[in-house]
Amino acid sequence: MKDNNPTAAIVIIGNEILSGRTQDINSNYLAKGLEKQGVRLNEVRVIADNEDMIISTINELRVKYTYVFTTGGIGPTHDDITTLSIAKAFGVKVVTHLEALKLLENYYNDDSGLTPARAKMAEIPIGAKLIDNPISKAPGFIIENVYVMAGVPIIMQVMFDHIKHCLKKGKIIISKSIFVFVGESFIAEHFNNLQNKYEMIEMGSYPFIRSQQDNNKAIFGTNLILRSDDNISLSKAYAELIDMIINMGIKFIEESNI
Amino acid sequence: MKDNNPTAAIVIIGNEILSGRTQDINSNYLAKGLEKQGVRLNEVRVIADNEDMIISTINELRVKYTYVFTTGGIGPTHDDITTLSIAKAFGVKVVTHLEALKLLENYYNDDSGLTPARAKMAEIPIGAKLIDNPISKAPGFIIENVYVMAGVPIIMQVMFDHIKHCLKKGKIIISKSIFVFVGESFIAEHFNNLQNKYEMIEMGSYPFIRSQQDNNKAIFGTNLILRSDDNISLSKAYAELIDMIINMGIKFIEESNI
Repeated sequence: MKDNNPTAAIVIIGNEILSGRTQDINSNYLAKGLEKQGVRLNEVRVIADNEDMIISTINELRVKYTYVFTTGGIGPTHDDITTLSIAKAFGVKVVTHLEALKLLENYYNDDSGLTPARAKMAEIPIGAKLIDNPISKAPGFIIENVYVMAGVPIIMQVMFDHIKHCLKKGKIIISKSIFVFVGESFIAEHFNNLQNKYEMIEMGSYPFIRSQQDNNKAIFGTNLILRSDDNISLSKAYAELIDMIINMGIKFIEESNI
Repeated sequence: MKDNNPTAAIVIIGNEILSGRTQDINSNYLAKGLEKQGVRLNEVRVIADNEDMIISTINELRVKYTYVFTTGGIGPTHDDITTLSIAKAFGVKVVTHLEALKLLENYYNDDSGLTPARAKMAEIPIGAKLIDNPISKAPGFIIENVYVMAGVPIIMQVMFDHIKHCLKKGKIIISKSIFVFVGESFIAEHFNNLQNKYEMIEMGSYPFIRSQQDNNKAIFGTNLILRSDDNISLSKAYAELIDMIINMGIKFIEESNI
C-alpha cells in the first residue's frame, strides 16, 4: 500500500533458521505489532550469522526504510556476532556500557560471576541506547533507526513491546475478510471488477485446502481480504463483496463470525 | 559454511505474510528440503505482491546463487502477479503453454469452463518448463535457475518434492545436538575453545526458556549444535563436547535420545 506511513524491514539473523532446524516466529510477531502501529513492513530477510552479510544487509536497508528491526546473535557465545557487525555497519566501535554491565553484574551473582562471556553482552556500539530485557537482563540496543533485539522469542517480544510505543505512528490499516467455499478461479473475475472499482483498497485472495471432518475429502476455498486505512470506503466495498457473493449463490463465512 | 556446494535463496511473495496475517511455513519446509540435498540456503526474503520489488529481488538473487525458489502469487486473481513479474525480470513475454492449458481444461469441467481467469494460469514465460501440480493442476514453472511455485503450503510441498531430485547435490551436512540445562553464558568460554579447536565445524549455541511442568518456574537452557559435512571430525568434536559437559557437572540430554 502506498502512503506516507513509516516503513520497516525485519532482519532475522541465525543459521538455525536457514538450516530449517528452527521455525522463525519472530517476524510474524513483529509484523503484527508493526501493523498495529501503522508501520508498513516492506520486507523480511533471513540471513546467516555472517559478518559481511549482516553489514551489507543493514547498510542496504537502513537507508531504505524508516526502521530496521533485527533479532538474534546478541548473546555471550562465539557465534553471537550481531552487535559487532552492526557497529561495523555504522563505522563505530563497541564499548562497555556501564549501565548494562551493572545489570549483568547483579544478575550473574553465582560462583562464576561476571565472566568475559557475560561481560561481552554489556558491549554496545558507541552512541546506542539500551533496550530493556527484564527476563535475562542482557539488553538489546537502538542505533539510529536500527533496533537490535534478542533471538529467543519470549525475550524479543518483551523487548519489542517495550519500544513499540516510541515508534512513529502511521494510519492504521483495517481489514475485513470472508471465507468462500469455492476455488479462487470461480470468483476471480468479479473480485477483479470490485478491485478496479475500489482502487485504493488492497484486495487479496488466498486459496486454502482443508479436509472435511466427516469424509476426509478435500475442500477448496478462498479467503478474500480487503485492507485499507479508510474505514468508510472499506465498509462500502465489503458490503458490495458480500452482495456479490450472495448473488453468486456461494457459501461463505464472515471472518468476524468465526 | 563455506564450501563448493550449490547455493540457494528463497523468495516468499505475499502481502498476507508481511501483514502478519499468515505465518510463513513454506520457507521452513524448503530449508529442510534443501539441507537434505546438500544445497546451502543463504538467505530468505519475504516481499510484497509488488512488480518492481519482485523484479529487482529476482534479478539480484538469480545471479548470486545457484538456485532461487519463489512461492506465492501464481493463481488466477488480480493480485497474482508473480508470473508476469518474473517474465519481466528475464525480459521475456508470457505465452499460453498448451500442455498447461490442456490440464486446466480437463480440470475445470464445470459449467463455467475455462474462464479467462483460469486460462491465465496457463500463461508461462517463454522458455520456461512446467512444474507439476497434481492437486489443483495450475502448474509452477522453472525459468533458468528460478523455480516458481504456488503459495498454498500443500501444493508448494508437492511441487518441491517433485523437482528436488533434479537439483545439483552437495555434500550433506550432518548435525549433532545436545540440550544443556544452564544458560549459554555458563558454557560460552569452553564452547568457544572447542570451536577454535575444530574450526571447520560450525558450532551454534541457542538459548531457550521453558516453564517447568510441576512448579511453572522458568528453566533457562541452551541447545548446542555441531554441524559439518565431515562425519569423523564431527563425531570427535561431539565426543569432546560431551566430555566437557560431564566434567563441568552440567545436566544434559543428547538430542538423539529425545
